[in-house]
Amino acid sequence: MLSKNQFKHLRSLRSKKNRYACRQFIVEGETIVGELLNSLDNRIQLVLCTSRYQQSLSTQALRQLGERLILCDESVLRGISSLDSPSPVLALLDMPRETNEITPTRGLGLYLDGIRDPGNLGTIIRVADWFGLHTISLAADCVDVYNPKTLQASMGSFSRVETRVASLKSIQAAQPDLALLGTCIDEGIDALEFDWPADALLIIGSESHGVRSEHESAISHWLSIPRGKTSTGAESLNAAVAAGILGAAYFRSCR
Amino acid sequence: MLSKNQFKHLRSLRSKKNRYACRQFIVEGETIVGELLNSLDNRIQLVLCTSRYQQSLSTQALRQLGERLILCDESVLRGISSLDSPSPVLALLDMPRETNEITPTRGLGLYLDGIRDPGNLGTIIRVADWFGLHTISLAADCVDVYNPKTLQASMGSFSRVETRVASLKSIQAAQPDLALLGTCIDEGIDALEFDWPADALLIIGSESHGVRSEHESAISHWLSIPRGKTSTGAESLNAAVAAGILGAAYFRSCR
Repeated sequence: MLSKNQFKHLRSLRSKKNRYACRQFIVEGETIVGELLNSLDNRIQLVLCTSRYQQSLSTQALRQLGERLILCDESVLRGISSLDSPSPVLALLDMPRETNEITPTRGLGLYLDGIRDPGNLGTIIRVADWFGLHTISLAADCVDVYNPKTLQASMGSFSRVETRVASLKSIQAAQPDLALLGTCIDEGIDALEFDWPADALLIIGSESHGVRSEHESAISHWLSIPRGKTSTGAESLNAAVAAGILGAAYFRSCR
Repeated sequence: MLSKNQFKHLRSLRSKKNRYACRQFIVEGETIVGELLNSLDNRIQLVLCTSRYQQSLSTQALRQLGERLILCDESVLRGISSLDSPSPVLALLDMPRETNEITPTRGLGLYLDGIRDPGNLGTIIRVADWFGLHTISLAADCVDVYNPKTLQASMGSFSRVETRVASLKSIQAAQPDLALLGTCIDEGIDALEFDWPADALLIIGSESHGVRSEHESAISHWLSIPRGKTSTGAESLNAAVAAGILGAAYFRSCR
């Protein structure tokens, strides 16, 4: 049974400050928790679920979890969840160890220059997982990777893609010859015809302001996704959709 | 001032049934309403906003709106809104007239085979607007175009992209020679190398089940977006991201 203190602790993880204070976070949803049981078992501290969900678990999963599995009512899960529609299962995980080391980017890396929408960040992590991108670096003002909506939108990809909070300057200092590519709405080179360098850091701007002007001088090429000829007024593409198109363009160019 | 009956009516439009019963819907958000004032003025029935927002409106917009502009407190807007963070302005609009006529698809059309997430639908509408796609056809079990989260994610693109609820059969009956292209996760033709037909209907499957099996026999080509070589486990791409990559691939092939 879940103790009052455990409930309070889990509920407190809705706040980013508390997540980082104890370096734990919560993942919700049947598909994602199911995936984690297979891949990240050693980081799972607790699994809370309804007795109905428990019945769907394999004997192996049940044995593996042992006392880490706690049954509870939907109302308890709802009290902990920060999603609109709470799921019948959630898991408490330890964050991976933090490191200040900046490993060099091989292949295509992404730098998110202030992505604020948790759904966009999660979807970009999913894009990076699909294309096997090296690392996602996040400017300090990006939304938190462990935000429940980010984790949900990533569909489990957060457990396979390395993310790090880093300034563009520190990445440049660690790897001065890395090509930095900027993205802009119009007037850049057509990303689908661009001859991409094998190693590059692609900078995706924030939803409302694009790439920060302080980074402009560091950028060697600006890329755009051309509109259709019959387009009549769209101002921009969603940041995650743009990341997907650019990722596809990179892999096409490298083949 | 907003009457009690007006408030009740506006609030009732949170339900799809009520929206279609009176063929009206609500749009929220400063950017979107700002765009609508410029482009769709004749469909706007009311604009509700805080006095602070009113100050940001041009004299022309104020004159144009006249008595259709109603000032109200944030609490009233919150009472009507169905978004997590209500904005200082919302507009009541008439739906465009419904037509049963199926106009032939020229260029690339999209058929959404059961998209359930309102954010995904809105983002796909934005993709279609960017690429200037002809029409989006929706299977009857798609989420509603006038769902507030769909409209918000479309960023105003809903006013420029034609959408229609239609069965695949009715589209085929109206245009028997139209190429139907299916999308699948693996094993399809690489969409980025495909020689796209000039006119085609691209079928995007639902988030959880893909393209319905009953449509398989009608499909002439299956397309996929290849994973990166270093991808280690992503199961799929987000439906709107996939639509964006496929749209970009189409336009690249047609250039």
